[in-house]
Amino acid sequence: MENISANKSFGGWQRQYLHDSTTLGCRMRFAVYLPPQASPQRRVPVLYWLSGLTCTDENFMHKAGAQRVAAELGLAIVAPDTSPRGADVADDEAFDLGQGAGFYLNATQAPWDRHYRMYDYVSQELPALIAAHFPVTGKPAIAGHSMGGHGALICALKRPQDYASVSAFSPICHPLNAPWGQKAFAAYLGEDRDTWQEWDASLLLAAAPQRLPLRVDVGLADSFLDTQLQPEALEQAAQACGYPLELYRHAEYDHSYYFVASLIEEQLRFHARHLGL
Amino acid sequence: MENISANKSFGGWQRQYLHDSTTLGCRMRFAVYLPPQASPQRRVPVLYWLSGLTCTDENFMHKAGAQRVAAELGLAIVAPDTSPRGADVADDEAFDLGQGAGFYLNATQAPWDRHYRMYDYVSQELPALIAAHFPVTGKPAIAGHSMGGHGALICALKRPQDYASVSAFSPICHPLNAPWGQKAFAAYLGEDRDTWQEWDASLLLAAAPQRLPLRVDVGLADSFLDTQLQPEALEQAAQACGYPLELYRHAEYDHSYYFVASLIEEQLRFHARHLGL
Repeated sequence: MENISANKSFGGWQRQYLHDSTTLGCRMRFAVYLPPQASPQRRVPVLYWLSGLTCTDENFMHKAGAQRVAAELGLAIVAPDTSPRGADVADDEAFDLGQGAGFYLNATQAPWDRHYRMYDYVSQELPALIAAHFPVTGKPAIAGHSMGGHGALICALKRPQDYASVSAFSPICHPLNAPWGQKAFAAYLGEDRDTWQEWDASLLLAAAPQRLPLRVDVGLADSFLDTQLQPEALEQAAQACGYPLELYRHAEYDHSYYFVASLIEEQLRFHARHLGL
Repeated sequence: MENISANKSFGGWQRQYLHDSTTLGCRMRFAVYLPPQASPQRRVPVLYWLSGLTCTDENFMHKAGAQRVAAELGLAIVAPDTSPRGADVADDEAFDLGQGAGFYLNATQAPWDRHYRMYDYVSQELPALIAAHFPVTGKPAIAGHSMGGHGALICALKRPQDYASVSAFSPICHPLNAPWGQKAFAAYLGEDRDTWQEWDASLLLAAAPQRLPLRVDVGLADSFLDTQLQPEALEQAAQACGYPLELYRHAEYDHSYYFVASLIEEQLRFHARHLGL
């Protein structure tokens, strides 16, 4: 694991690392914010942040302004990249497929199945690496934006025993019924739609074996709201099975990081309550 | 004036505009944050933010997290670009000369003198445009980072009657004695160093006719501190003439926007006191 950047931020440290991922079969970069409370003698809770289409580990750390609240709370934040990367990793010219668009699932179809195992990476390999090298406590929170909101939801709904709480900004709630999801799932998982169901948050929520604190924020001026995000699918699934979903709709806010920045404090304080902070 | 983007942010609006600048002889983009308190019926104070080398109007608005505090205070923020722009505007391959590196002065040497009049633009044309189109009060504050910190200092020191207060992160305090400043001044102003003096903050401060509230923050891990920034030159000039400079040195912080984001709240609250907020 190679440390490639370190910037003091709100009394803590913003760092980037490179490592060879065995799950993905390529070299990966990730970002970590360690609050001032973290030290070899004091472990702190950690939140995993999953970013959206075209993003890297940097977008959230540059634009969300999360470090201020994380420093106050004593919360570490880890942001992985959004796909495997590299010249020998399959890619596509479109922004919504291939590198930058891993969709946090395990691909089964060639050529994607060789590297695209982002679900195993963000839910297994990366947390094990973080636990081995950083002063963090056991059960993390998870959150994300757009494609990363979908990622956070499916990670938490598939393995609720591994997380303290989950939240999402503008998530793709029902990818089976959305153009981005259908395109990516067809490529990564093939045309048999039965195999898609285990990667759809609204379907997973309906069958959830265990309930986690779950918060979702969407903007009503988000141009993707009706076509790609469909929070009403998640809401209906939650109502049907009595899952305690906190869904907030915000007038005039859009899909951008200006929305994330405006509400990140509320989401981090939501997680803090469930992380014992 | 053409509005090209609008994003809801902390209850206010983050917008970008294009306009034809008569001072610069080219089309320019700028960014405005209007806090929720601003309306056709209520004017608010405004802070001008000048960015550093390679930046545009976007860097500060994306990375500093200033909107949160501006929304709380009721403060508008205007961020211009860092140079004239366009295919017919003189440029240089280096990052520290030409487009993205206007140094907030009025060039006298060809080919730069045709468009590079950033001092007149940020101190005259842009404030007049803003006053005509946005609900802002008269006397603004001004701040900036690195080359933009130099820009904020020279604007305020040359025309103290036009500003309520001035601050800078990591400014180039004495460009006559720094490689970035010497290179840019030689190109834009020519080899006669007597003409450089009116664009050097440390020399201007020593001769300042009127005193403004002035705050400077620098990071002690800033790799440019000794070679390019030289805050001690400004400090010595202030001590020699009794100018009330507030200079803060921050251990472990560097030259990045992580430093700006960590301290922007303190600088904005400094300005708020002098803007009557």
